[in-house]
Amino acid sequence: MQIPQLLNRLVPGLLEVVRHLPYGGRVVTQIVVEQFANRTPPRPRPFSLASDYTSWLSLTDRTFTGRHLPVAVPGTVELPSVDDVLELFRRKPGAEIPSTDTSVMFMFFAQWFTDSFLRTDRHDWRKNTSTQEIDFCQIYGVAESKTRQLREMAGGRMKSQMIKGEEFPAFLFERTAGGASAVKSEFEGLHDAEFLVNVLLRDVSQDQKDLFFAVGLEHGNSTVGSIALDIVFLREHNRIAGILEQEYKLNREQPSWDRGLDPAELDERLFQTARNIMVVLLLKLVVEEYIGHIAPYDPPLELVPAIAEGKDWNRSNWVSIEFNLLYRWHSMVPDWITTDEGKREAKSFLRDNNEVVVARGVEWLIAQCSRSRAGKVGLFNTPAFLVDRKAAEYPAIEERTIALMRAAQLQSFNDYRRRFGMPAVTDFAQVTHDVAIQKRLKDLYKDVDRLEWYVGIFAEEYPDEQFLGDLLTTMVAYDAFTQALTNPLLARNVYNEATFTASGLKIIEETVSLQQVVARNAKSPGKVFASFEC
Amino acid sequence: MQIPQLLNRLVPGLLEVVRHLPYGGRVVTQIVVEQFANRTPPRPRPFSLASDYTSWLSLTDRTFTGRHLPVAVPGTVELPSVDDVLELFRRKPGAEIPSTDTSVMFMFFAQWFTDSFLRTDRHDWRKNTSTQEIDFCQIYGVAESKTRQLREMAGGRMKSQMIKGEEFPAFLFERTAGGASAVKSEFEGLHDAEFLVNVLLRDVSQDQKDLFFAVGLEHGNSTVGSIALDIVFLREHNRIAGILEQEYKLNREQPSWDRGLDPAELDERLFQTARNIMVVLLLKLVVEEYIGHIAPYDPPLELVPAIAEGKDWNRSNWVSIEFNLLYRWHSMVPDWITTDEGKREAKSFLRDNNEVVVARGVEWLIAQCSRSRAGKVGLFNTPAFLVDRKAAEYPAIEERTIALMRAAQLQSFNDYRRRFGMPAVTDFAQVTHDVAIQKRLKDLYKDVDRLEWYVGIFAEEYPDEQFLGDLLTTMVAYDAFTQALTNPLLARNVYNEATFTASGLKIIEETVSLQQVVARNAKSPGKVFASFEC
Repeated sequence: MQIPQLLNRLVPGLLEVVRHLPYGGRVVTQIVVEQFANRTPPRPRPFSLASDYTSWLSLTDRTFTGRHLPVAVPGTVELPSVDDVLELFRRKPGAEIPSTDTSVMFMFFAQWFTDSFLRTDRHDWRKNTSTQEIDFCQIYGVAESKTRQLREMAGGRMKSQMIKGEEFPAFLFERTAGGASAVKSEFEGLHDAEFLVNVLLRDVSQDQKDLFFAVGLEHGNSTVGSIALDIVFLREHNRIAGILEQEYKLNREQPSWDRGLDPAELDERLFQTARNIMVVLLLKLVVEEYIGHIAPYDPPLELVPAIAEGKDWNRSNWVSIEFNLLYRWHSMVPDWITTDEGKREAKSFLRDNNEVVVARGVEWLIAQCSRSRAGKVGLFNTPAFLVDRKAAEYPAIEERTIALMRAAQLQSFNDYRRRFGMPAVTDFAQVTHDVAIQKRLKDLYKDVDRLEWYVGIFAEEYPDEQFLGDLLTTMVAYDAFTQALTNPLLARNVYNEATFTASGLKIIEETVSLQQVVARNAKSPGKVFASFEC
Repeated sequence: MQIPQLLNRLVPGLLEVVRHLPYGGRVVTQIVVEQFANRTPPRPRPFSLASDYTSWLSLTDRTFTGRHLPVAVPGTVELPSVDDVLELFRRKPGAEIPSTDTSVMFMFFAQWFTDSFLRTDRHDWRKNTSTQEIDFCQIYGVAESKTRQLREMAGGRMKSQMIKGEEFPAFLFERTAGGASAVKSEFEGLHDAEFLVNVLLRDVSQDQKDLFFAVGLEHGNSTVGSIALDIVFLREHNRIAGILEQEYKLNREQPSWDRGLDPAELDERLFQTARNIMVVLLLKLVVEEYIGHIAPYDPPLELVPAIAEGKDWNRSNWVSIEFNLLYRWHSMVPDWITTDEGKREAKSFLRDNNEVVVARGVEWLIAQCSRSRAGKVGLFNTPAFLVDRKAAEYPAIEERTIALMRAAQLQSFNDYRRRFGMPAVTDFAQVTHDVAIQKRLKDLYKDVDRLEWYVGIFAEEYPDEQFLGDLLTTMVAYDAFTQALTNPLLARNVYNEATFTASGLKIIEETVSLQQVVARNAKSPGKVFASFEC
């Protein structure tokens, strides 16, 4: 981030001192947030994917994905073929570039977290089916009707089952008389049936389906990381609901609650209060542990309630197409996972593999993922199985990304650098020192001013203390902070004991890491290891 | 508003001077807006009609109406019967209390304007079916699909017809072979059919229906004022679309528009741009002419773009139940309308009477309404036909209002005074000098601290230079300013030539009164008279 060499060496030590000062984290957070949240004009943005010019729809209909910059002027840009761009991402066999210090657990958290608000509508690529908020739909579903399908409707709890003495979500499927798998009637309509059958369950066997859990999102069971996190947070929800229920019954600490609630009213209040607490717990982990890892030098960030009050950027969130695209860190997927039972091929171990989750437990799985190193975010590092088309009608993930990027007609890498307050680059050598990559990009784009944004953000070289290139860091920070910190639960008039109860506030204040959440819901808390660093 | 007597006498003269100073209006507006928009904590509010405590739904689901204060603690308040409260509003025969200087045209504008965002859901009283914004749904409908039903889909225009050389919206109904009225197929689904039949068309003859126009809202044809304003603004939309089309064809003034638009693309861009201009025109009339009339001393307010930027209250609008209720100025309906053809009974002349609109024209009607005096907002002044129940299943308007107010379990008049930064009253004599009303209220409520908010705001006495009592003025100003001035079209990054075109900006800047809009769409502009004062 353009810091002189000497200062660069001093920063980590400096941050280590600040970390231990009273209000140190709070001050660092204020500085970091101000640095990024004002990099581009505040919402409302004039444009969205609803129209390329300002219209009532583009200004108000948040089902259409937003955009930071208008479309590139048509015909002004000559672009390389999609296939050529695709090859810029392909990892060569055996040539994985490892990250400096990032675990596979971080990778899974990133996927699981962003799946909740980067929800491209399958029927209309211009739309986003999320609520725009960090709403914990991973476990609560994307609409009130789905939340009710997933709730126990007693004690404020989510539906769950015990398997070998441990708590898991309910199963999604059951076998019919004929032996086929069918979605249980109580979960009908929870997910888009056509999408389940044609896409997600395409290569999934009946036996695998038997172990699929009923969780908030369609993709919940697709990777072991997503389902592990769903399981951990479902347990945490039910744990918190249990604490709140106990306190209500013991007549403690909830002075504002009506003492005469009937069971249905009590269930509702327990559920809603537990959810309030859960959303803020997630925001804490996201800001303090997850963004802390993404930010250069891993600064000691803190979730500061009401930090957005009075700020220009304190406007309701509206996910941009750029945010949707820049978050596709496919190159983090490693070739191998190192488990204490030996190396496992990542491709098969990580996907549609609830068997290992049930057999070995989430804690074992989280520990393996926390010890395995993720790939480095950048070009030439996406595993082949995410690049190669499986069938004509079934494009690979990286292919779909590039198609979406092209459909959105984005302006160039340099246009976005300028938009986010950074000088334009004037030579490919300013993007990366790697001469081979320079040449490859030059062959494709001729002039660095024509470099595509989606390629540029991943081509940009970055030092070990960073996790992403400069423009990518800036853009992800802008969208992340102005989303997370404008969550209504953090508002000055909302973040209080009435919203969370005293015990809820205590849980929020005491929680600073995923490790804690996993441990307090584990059979053997002492053996838990959950880490984004590796 | 607690201004000493001497100052009070100076204010009108002072404002008259300021009105003619450069930036005078702008400065007055900044002062007035700051005065009211910070009277209560900014959104998000913790509560809504979704739940009496903070829940994810109450914080995020804007289909539920918001609320400024939580529900009154149950059982703490003893309230008079609904019938007793109803009688506080009834106007005695022949005892209309006239307003100081407010025309029936103002009354119609208020109704027509607020019908667009105070849309109580008939199927669930806790909900509001509006978009929360001033979106001009009176002529564009409440959803994109309805907008398309109402659009000509050519030249950016709305569907219209010529009657005796003047432009009107299309008719909503047609006669079937059997002679009955049926909604035209192109307008099917535009309005809730059941509501149309069972409520709105209950007492409407086939002949009346023949003259019903296809406009954005169900209620559009219910009063002559609403339909007159719909007609005027439909003409204005089509006039503006025509200007924009001309300029496009002459290759003038729209440098950013693609020169090669096909007819459908051109229609879309013309429509959207005309709508952008129209919404801001409405905001101008609302702030400068309409709120100017409501505010004490009719100050010279100006619509200042971007005035909300950087303000604490610059948050997306969310209509409150209090706003919905306090705006029910039924007492403005006079007993008689004075037309240049003699006195007409208001009850029959004003309602479901498109015949007079078509026969005499909107300009004639607007002139009559601008010369007729409206009733004074307050107790004992609502016409009997809005108080008396027509049938067991068909409660009167004032009855429905009181039922809604009671269902919302609002806190007291004094609670709201405190919430909006005003001292509590300690005696009924501080509410009104009228000893008979004091006694009546004391008989019903015993203690002034128990006075219901909905009764209190209308009981509060106010001097001639005010249009409403102090609390009502403050609350309506808070909700109105924080709604109108946070409209996305006024945002710094949106309010510009790209959004409106140069001609659009010129139209906006030149328009300061309803009189102008009516005149530039009239056959005889010189004869037009449209005024909120009388």
